[in-house]
Amino acid sequence: MACRSRLTPLIRRAAAPGLLRSATAANSVPCAARCISSTAARHFRGSALRRAKFTTDTYPEIKRDERFSHITAEHVAFFKGILGKESAILDGVTAEVSGDDMEPYNMDWMRKYQGHCKLVLKPGSTEEVSKILKYCNDNMLAVVPQGGNTGLVGGSVPVFDEIVINTSRMNQIRFFDDVSGVLVVDAGVVLEVADQFLAEKGYIFPLDLGAKGSCHIGGNVAANAGGLRLLRYGSLHGNVLGIEAVLPDGTIVDDLSRLRKNNTGYDLKQLFIGGEGTIGMVTAVSIHCPQRSKAMNVAFLGADSFEKIQQAFREAKIQLGEILSAFELMDSYSQNLVHTVRQNKRPLEGEYPFYCLIETSGSNSEHDAEKLGNFLEDVMSKEIIADGVLAENETQIKSLWAQREGIPECLGHWGGVYKYDLSIPLGDLYKLVDETRKRIEDAGLKGDTDDFPVVDVVGYGHMGDQNLHLNIAVRRYDKRVEEVLEPFVYEWTGKVNGSISAEHGLGIAKKNYIGYSRSETMVGLMKQIKNLYDPNGIMNPYKYI
Amino acid sequence: MACRSRLTPLIRRAAAPGLLRSATAANSVPCAARCISSTAARHFRGSALRRAKFTTDTYPEIKRDERFSHITAEHVAFFKGILGKESAILDGVTAEVSGDDMEPYNMDWMRKYQGHCKLVLKPGSTEEVSKILKYCNDNMLAVVPQGGNTGLVGGSVPVFDEIVINTSRMNQIRFFDDVSGVLVVDAGVVLEVADQFLAEKGYIFPLDLGAKGSCHIGGNVAANAGGLRLLRYGSLHGNVLGIEAVLPDGTIVDDLSRLRKNNTGYDLKQLFIGGEGTIGMVTAVSIHCPQRSKAMNVAFLGADSFEKIQQAFREAKIQLGEILSAFELMDSYSQNLVHTVRQNKRPLEGEYPFYCLIETSGSNSEHDAEKLGNFLEDVMSKEIIADGVLAENETQIKSLWAQREGIPECLGHWGGVYKYDLSIPLGDLYKLVDETRKRIEDAGLKGDTDDFPVVDVVGYGHMGDQNLHLNIAVRRYDKRVEEVLEPFVYEWTGKVNGSISAEHGLGIAKKNYIGYSRSETMVGLMKQIKNLYDPNGIMNPYKYI
Repeated sequence: MACRSRLTPLIRRAAAPGLLRSATAANSVPCAARCISSTAARHFRGSALRRAKFTTDTYPEIKRDERFSHITAEHVAFFKGILGKESAILDGVTAEVSGDDMEPYNMDWMRKYQGHCKLVLKPGSTEEVSKILKYCNDNMLAVVPQGGNTGLVGGSVPVFDEIVINTSRMNQIRFFDDVSGVLVVDAGVVLEVADQFLAEKGYIFPLDLGAKGSCHIGGNVAANAGGLRLLRYGSLHGNVLGIEAVLPDGTIVDDLSRLRKNNTGYDLKQLFIGGEGTIGMVTAVSIHCPQRSKAMNVAFLGADSFEKIQQAFREAKIQLGEILSAFELMDSYSQNLVHTVRQNKRPLEGEYPFYCLIETSGSNSEHDAEKLGNFLEDVMSKEIIADGVLAENETQIKSLWAQREGIPECLGHWGGVYKYDLSIPLGDLYKLVDETRKRIEDAGLKGDTDDFPVVDVVGYGHMGDQNLHLNIAVRRYDKRVEEVLEPFVYEWTGKVNGSISAEHGLGIAKKNYIGYSRSETMVGLMKQIKNLYDPNGIMNPYKYI
Repeated sequence: MACRSRLTPLIRRAAAPGLLRSATAANSVPCAARCISSTAARHFRGSALRRAKFTTDTYPEIKRDERFSHITAEHVAFFKGILGKESAILDGVTAEVSGDDMEPYNMDWMRKYQGHCKLVLKPGSTEEVSKILKYCNDNMLAVVPQGGNTGLVGGSVPVFDEIVINTSRMNQIRFFDDVSGVLVVDAGVVLEVADQFLAEKGYIFPLDLGAKGSCHIGGNVAANAGGLRLLRYGSLHGNVLGIEAVLPDGTIVDDLSRLRKNNTGYDLKQLFIGGEGTIGMVTAVSIHCPQRSKAMNVAFLGADSFEKIQQAFREAKIQLGEILSAFELMDSYSQNLVHTVRQNKRPLEGEYPFYCLIETSGSNSEHDAEKLGNFLEDVMSKEIIADGVLAENETQIKSLWAQREGIPECLGHWGGVYKYDLSIPLGDLYKLVDETRKRIEDAGLKGDTDDFPVVDVVGYGHMGDQNLHLNIAVRRYDKRVEEVLEPFVYEWTGKVNGSISAEHGLGIAKKNYIGYSRSETMVGLMKQIKNLYDPNGIMNPYKYI
């Protein structure tokens, strides 16, 4: 595709390989929460100042619920009887297990949360999950359902000695229909595995996120993961056709419909989507997969104000319509930090207060290129966009995406990041970043030297979904910074009727803040559901609501 | 758009005006359940043999739940106090009300179900709904939430003397955001009104169905209406962003989020989508609306087998991808009956066992026409499709759509129709029609003269959604026909893991058949939810589960 005359040509850059996503599929589109395997994460974080504290130290106010039993040798023997083989159990109760072996189950990949779990169970079937949960419920043993453990809010790791029930051995693709695009998988199937399977059939998984290489689909569904394809393909609430789950009393919720339409009663599966394993454990998922697009184009644009970015978004929806597959926002602060860390050449020659990345996916490359070209000429002639580049090949596409995806990693360069994942009505979306920056500056916390904890306050995110990632890059975690940020950010978000968790969920991180996004009535109704399904409270305790 | 050389040119036909949909919007795409206003429906059905029986006569086994109070003058006085004005109440308890005035609330538009209601309340606000429901709950007065009353399963009309709470006075568009496409409406806003409002802004309501001129959005959501845009825009479970509803105890469920992403707790609103007013009454809806497509193209194709139709569908998904907006199936039997009733010229010169209607919607007319043209050439050169026509203008588009949409009305020509709305895995989808026809023939029930009750057995539907409408056109309702059809149709559907109600819901029509699509466990879990929210059972009793 030729660059338009009014656009700056893209200069091909060799970005650091580690910062490029492993684009196994042509139009893979990772999310802000870049996946790094546990080992890689440890290595990455090893250079930072963050230490792996126990969650019980970070949150000393959380006390172990003494209704829960302590795990005994008898319990372990029972589980061994169910699971049969040694490899399905990691037993730190009756045997010695090294910390290294237990750590991947006790700690999240960001090394922010760490539990005291001593028993990991890896069932191989839904029936095994049912037996395990029934026994745990009968014996008041608390559990944590766990998939790939790639969450960002501590939802998939224990706090105290909860038993981890890990889905890694439930990893079969059960069914695929080549005509309807319906896929049925075990909860433990890795997202990228499913997507590669689908790619061979000409289909695409309607969810994509940075953690695709290690996250489990059951976990994605339990967390109601969002990611970038949401703009195009919608949320899991619409795409998931059926769920198989196990309730704490062992009941198997056999709601694994393969049908796109099924109006026979309450849509109970929806409670498990985004339920974060607090009312039951998802063991299989049926999902409607769309046709994979043959063509992908990416443009990177600079604009003089957030208002102009909003205009560009409106025009993109009108002019690109059905082929628009991503519209990502980045502010200059985020791009400056990426540049500082990587020392790479910027995509555009000039610098602008705001940037956006636009991706199109369609079935005809020429048509898409023409639409995108026309759109770019239009928004530049109307001076909505100040400058822009179009990627000419797959390498350049990756390179442009790296400017957006690289943000989370680059922000971590100085030591740590305070991360907020917010939904905010579009008109107000960037105001919060400006106001937060001003508060941090007014408090004298931001500066260029080690005397100041804060490096910068940046905003980026899935603009097409009103989803802002407000990030504060710091040299160290500092109570003074926290006091400036919280509850301010949550209060501000609550005032504009935003969501304090757009796509990351509640977990332990946001359990106490739900009141900023939900009324007392709603929280009360949610607790009613929790009590209905999990009256003993054994499912993923100390979290969510 | 020029017809391709290998395609039969479309001969412009003047279809009977009454059979053309009133296409107020360029790409309005009605569903099988064609909307007719109450008066029109009566007129239409007046020529048929169907009589308006009381539901209590059709289902003598249903007994009035004696826990419910009978409405007294005191109750009526209370409601008058809440609602203030006369026009908000239709009071057949303490005053005389003509049968004609009460009929639209007591009877569905198909005149299949009729209740004995004597009190209709039309609240003007959510608060009024809350006061009404709380009072009803406290006084054990059963209620039926009612929107436009366009359902097909008797879900929105009373059986005995339940109080109708009608949403017609709650008809304000509350909010629209031109950038995000988020629309918030009262439950009583008519679908077409909302869609016309959106059309002016360049947006489209992500749901369309034949009843759009009279159905209420609150009712659409309560019924989880499907329709034709589902193939393109997905289901209401994905598009509805928020709901305001009132529980029987008067609690206002204030879950009216305007955000595309909001991962803060259980997604309770989903229980009201498709809940058919059995756990609460929807009073407002927030919904994500997509960009309206500027271009629409329609093709009508003939094929020699159902296998070839499936191949055409697969190719359409691949080649038309993001612009495919409808793929509708019609068998020769349905088209023959349309032709017999209308005596119109058929779209294709030859006759084929199967037909499909393909619609595309996109942002660039030329691109779309090229894609569709290439697709048609391809499927004809591969002999997947035997013949086809492309519409060249809006009139021809309407005319082709009339071949599909006209089916339900034409089938009613002889007196009545047994209608089944089923989801069936694609490979098996048409087998049921063949088997049903054979059973009817074997029983000696089908023939060309008045001696035979059955005119024909036809299949059509939303192929793209695996949604079959199996219809049996009859000269009269006949117990022998019913015995051949039921439980056979439901058993067959259950055996292939289909759904006995794809998009019409359960209502009273399918309450007793849910077991064919849902396990005892699932039905038990649903009853648990019903009991949780409506322990007195006052919400829309005698229906659903």
